[in-house]
Amino acid sequence: MVNVAILGFGVVGSGVAEVLAKNGAQINRKMDNAIQLKYIVDIRDFPDSPFADKFIKDFAVIEQDPDVNVVVETIGGATFAKDFTERALRAGKSVVTSNKELVAQHGYELLQLAKANGANYFFEASVGGGIPIIRPLSQCLAANELTEICGILNGTTNYILTRMIKGGLSFAVALKEAQKNGYAEQNPAADVEGTDACRKICILASLAFGRHVYPDQVPTEGITGVTLADVGYAAACGRKIKLIGRAIRREAGKVCAYVAPHLVDEENPLSGVEDVFNAIMVKGDAIGDVMFYGRGAGKLPTASAVVADVIDAAKHITGNKCLEWGPGGDDVTTPPDALESAWYIRAKAASADVKAALGDVSFLARSGAPEHEVACITGVYSETALQEKLAGLEIASCFRLLA
Amino acid sequence: MVNVAILGFGVVGSGVAEVLAKNGAQINRKMDNAIQLKYIVDIRDFPDSPFADKFIKDFAVIEQDPDVNVVVETIGGATFAKDFTERALRAGKSVVTSNKELVAQHGYELLQLAKANGANYFFEASVGGGIPIIRPLSQCLAANELTEICGILNGTTNYILTRMIKGGLSFAVALKEAQKNGYAEQNPAADVEGTDACRKICILASLAFGRHVYPDQVPTEGITGVTLADVGYAAACGRKIKLIGRAIRREAGKVCAYVAPHLVDEENPLSGVEDVFNAIMVKGDAIGDVMFYGRGAGKLPTASAVVADVIDAAKHITGNKCLEWGPGGDDVTTPPDALESAWYIRAKAASADVKAALGDVSFLARSGAPEHEVACITGVYSETALQEKLAGLEIASCFRLLA
Repeated sequence: MVNVAILGFGVVGSGVAEVLAKNGAQINRKMDNAIQLKYIVDIRDFPDSPFADKFIKDFAVIEQDPDVNVVVETIGGATFAKDFTERALRAGKSVVTSNKELVAQHGYELLQLAKANGANYFFEASVGGGIPIIRPLSQCLAANELTEICGILNGTTNYILTRMIKGGLSFAVALKEAQKNGYAEQNPAADVEGTDACRKICILASLAFGRHVYPDQVPTEGITGVTLADVGYAAACGRKIKLIGRAIRREAGKVCAYVAPHLVDEENPLSGVEDVFNAIMVKGDAIGDVMFYGRGAGKLPTASAVVADVIDAAKHITGNKCLEWGPGGDDVTTPPDALESAWYIRAKAASADVKAALGDVSFLARSGAPEHEVACITGVYSETALQEKLAGLEIASCFRLLA
Repeated sequence: MVNVAILGFGVVGSGVAEVLAKNGAQINRKMDNAIQLKYIVDIRDFPDSPFADKFIKDFAVIEQDPDVNVVVETIGGATFAKDFTERALRAGKSVVTSNKELVAQHGYELLQLAKANGANYFFEASVGGGIPIIRPLSQCLAANELTEICGILNGTTNYILTRMIKGGLSFAVALKEAQKNGYAEQNPAADVEGTDACRKICILASLAFGRHVYPDQVPTEGITGVTLADVGYAAACGRKIKLIGRAIRREAGKVCAYVAPHLVDEENPLSGVEDVFNAIMVKGDAIGDVMFYGRGAGKLPTASAVVADVIDAAKHITGNKCLEWGPGGDDVTTPPDALESAWYIRAKAASADVKAALGDVSFLARSGAPEHEVACITGVYSETALQEKLAGLEIASCFRLLA
């Protein structure tokens, strides 16, 4: 028997209990050791829950119960969650989480702690909700030298952008709609400013390239600066604006990771990813491009990924599975300043001035454009080179193209 | 040290040797036991190969060498490949393969044989080339009751259909082009008649639904009957014709599996899968829709999947990983006759006769249609019900819609 404790009975935690209850018999048919939910820790009371008999309030009970093998941390944040995770790992229990903040900030040390205690720390649900990506990256693509990871990592912003592109809604109106539909928080900053996508690309980059990449090493731009004018110009050149998290292997093994809106070519499968869906493109030297697509959030999809980790942890209670990466440091990353690409520019300027600054560009048109608005696609430049050329022009928007 | 032997130095086998040579150091950094290529078995001579010192001609050498732990079977077919696989498994060696014919026909017994001998039989590369699908299905989606698998499983036919749709080429011309580019065999039957897709959906269905589904239980229609007229009518209603392999969980746990061209809605991510790419959509009760996308064939992508299996086998040389399913039988499958969907029909008939037979339909138009050609989208019918209604009409094409 493998006993599981869930910490935090919020959206994901209650989903995990639900999936274990609903599909437990089917899951256990394939297990040598049956999985059983023993405790749920929450400071709140849930007298009407079907799991009412499982609730306790004190984490120490779990910490001291040698029969608990796997702890599911769905508390979120990096305070209590970190403390409980460390104590569970020190007690030799495996920990499974959907907590991207904690993994992005403390993944390296928690993986080391798990290893030192013969336990596992799994976090499939921390990126891409239910989409299998952590395990495929670490196992299925193990034969490859990975060169780039690039994805739509946040469902809220992708929903907002989709409504702007397909519904013609402004950012503010689309955000309100997302909040009304439960896709965005009342304080949407972590989503619309790119923080959530930043945490996820940190986790993917650490796993793919082998050393911890921290959120403060990843320049992050959200979608608050994307306007309907930009959406219109993007459409005029066969592209869609998407918030992309990207991590690229550069010279000397350094990782260039950043989050920013991009104009994505319609031939790129990422351009077809709409609404709250996520997709992650992985490039490897042998495999070429592989893409993983699905619901990046939501109670049951995320719970599905958590439970898959619980199953894996249950199959490996007697040993560490060696999911790990090396420590972070100043020598791990390189900023995207030198990364070359074509760019989309929207400026308040005369087209002659833009041409004088940038040479041969492709000008774009949209209906209803105000006087002195100019938009174009530039040649291929690094960010540094582009900014030098743009000095003196009044730039409204400036996004990279993704081929 | 984990010693590997490759059987068959064709496209995939030589790719495996190449990936092991190129990325071996990186792979072994993460392994407790380093992987080493010890033998390559082929009846041909390769004196100029960089692996020339590894070649032997007699499989018995491998069978009798206790130091060989993992055998890579990239011979293909179900004769020698089956014999060597059985002998390797009986000798307690794990076998890794890209051989879909063998797995689709004998997967159940070979998995049983592996288990009985404490070895593993892995076949990630048998479906979707380099796309990770077998391992995600068996591990990452383990928390789900799966309800449907549906995919573009054959790159050759997808290339031909893409060239018909985007290039306006006839089937015959597109096939010639595919042959010229090395995407189709000189005898293209296994691809264009759906045999290859059928084998792959058998493997996926067996894994997802738990009992062996044999190719002769899967009604299979290829793309030889797809014309430019059908492509044109599909475009007229915002759809693309794709060859789809499908397996659906039906009443009483029965599996309805079949292969046929479908008109795929442009909102469905499968419709955007072009050229030689493959994609597999998996539906589960918790996770919703998840899609896996990538190169479905080719030397290095396929080798990448084989080597990932070699790594997994090397990590589990002392035990069986329990990838398995139950035996096949007449009670496993149910034919698609009763499966309901909307249909696309092209007939040589008067539209009044079509209307009389099918009631309310949506007629479709295309430029250059000959007199008496009628095409339409019908209401929702089972195949049996539809065929009854169509009796007496001269039907040219009849394909299901995929929403």
